[in-house]
Amino acid sequence: VTTADGQRARRRTGRRPGDPRSRELILRAARECFAATGYAATTIRSVATAAGVDPALVHYFFGTKDRLFAAAMELPLDPSQIVDDVLAGEVAGLGERLARRFFEVWDDPATGPPLVGLIRGAASHQPSAELLREFVGREILLRIAASEGHPDAVLRANLCAAQLVGTAFLRYVLRVEPLASADPAELVGWLAPTLQRYLTARDPERPVG
Amino acid sequence: VTTADGQRARRRTGRRPGDPRSRELILRAARECFAATGYAATTIRSVATAAGVDPALVHYFFGTKDRLFAAAMELPLDPSQIVDDVLAGEVAGLGERLARRFFEVWDDPATGPPLVGLIRGAASHQPSAELLREFVGREILLRIAASEGHPDAVLRANLCAAQLVGTAFLRYVLRVEPLASADPAELVGWLAPTLQRYLTARDPERPVG
Repeated sequence: VTTADGQRARRRTGRRPGDPRSRELILRAARECFAATGYAATTIRSVATAAGVDPALVHYFFGTKDRLFAAAMELPLDPSQIVDDVLAGEVAGLGERLARRFFEVWDDPATGPPLVGLIRGAASHQPSAELLREFVGREILLRIAASEGHPDAVLRANLCAAQLVGTAFLRYVLRVEPLASADPAELVGWLAPTLQRYLTARDPERPVG
Repeated sequence: VTTADGQRARRRTGRRPGDPRSRELILRAARECFAATGYAATTIRSVATAAGVDPALVHYFFGTKDRLFAAAMELPLDPSQIVDDVLAGEVAGLGERLARRFFEVWDDPATGPPLVGLIRGAASHQPSAELLREFVGREILLRIAASEGHPDAVLRANLCAAQLVGTAFLRYVLRVEPLASADPAELVGWLAPTLQRYLTARDPERPVG
């Protein structure tokens, strides 16, 4: 029995897999679980239990917890894809790829505007925005920062987040000029070395480690 | 006639200088003028006219437009003092002095909490918070960035603002750990080279110019 066969077999154990209401039930249960217990404590299994379906059905529809979360929160991006893109390539280009991906996502009319809501909501402590913020921090920036194996990876992820959240706030929410109209390529040139240093420098004082 | 004599003479031209209501009248007029026409277009003279007092009386109570603004908005800091402190000393220490001053102001229980309101208010586009944000950008960061004479000083000030506003948002508003509990000295070590590069680098690609 191959892994693919096993996956197909597991999918068949799910209740009413053809019923579109199952997917909606799972999403509703996921929203409730994430909101009630936070991202870390919520599991595929706990969502399945809350939805009254087999965990295999949750896997069948959403694959992983982070994709379930993104779907439940209607988050217009796939965090795993972003992490994979940024980590693919030379370590020396880490900061540049992160900066480039950041402006691509925010300048895209499909993904940018919903993210403005995230920043506004976080400022007024809306629970769903808090959850999204925690998720983006943990599932994107922390995974990128942790790739270098520094023991203070969480602080390094926070520092990247501070630069990026501040940039998003001024450029896309407040629309401060000239930042709001600046060419993304020029901004990548400014931010890339900053992010590179936060992610890879051996210590704060050295430019790049 | 010395300058001090001249100042005393001008003060005497002000209407009801001993009347504490004059100060309150001026502050109320200042709030209205700044809100109606923005920081740049408001003058000591226009505030005096709106308050029905002599401009000399406005000078007598508040000295400069930025101090009048700080008093009118109940801003718990003196922007000129901050700019003077940051600009005093070697250019090589510019980023470090700015980072250090930033954490001093935000970690001070007298000045930090009111600034949290500024960030929250700016996110929801409250006019007074917008005005404060514009003022801090123009009267502190732009004056520091302009000291190096780069033609793109406004963008450089925006980049510093992005790093600092994002840091304030995560550390003091959302209280994201470990950033929220990190030693300010450690954070100065991380942020100083970033701010130094934004303020002084000849172009984005060079570490420090």
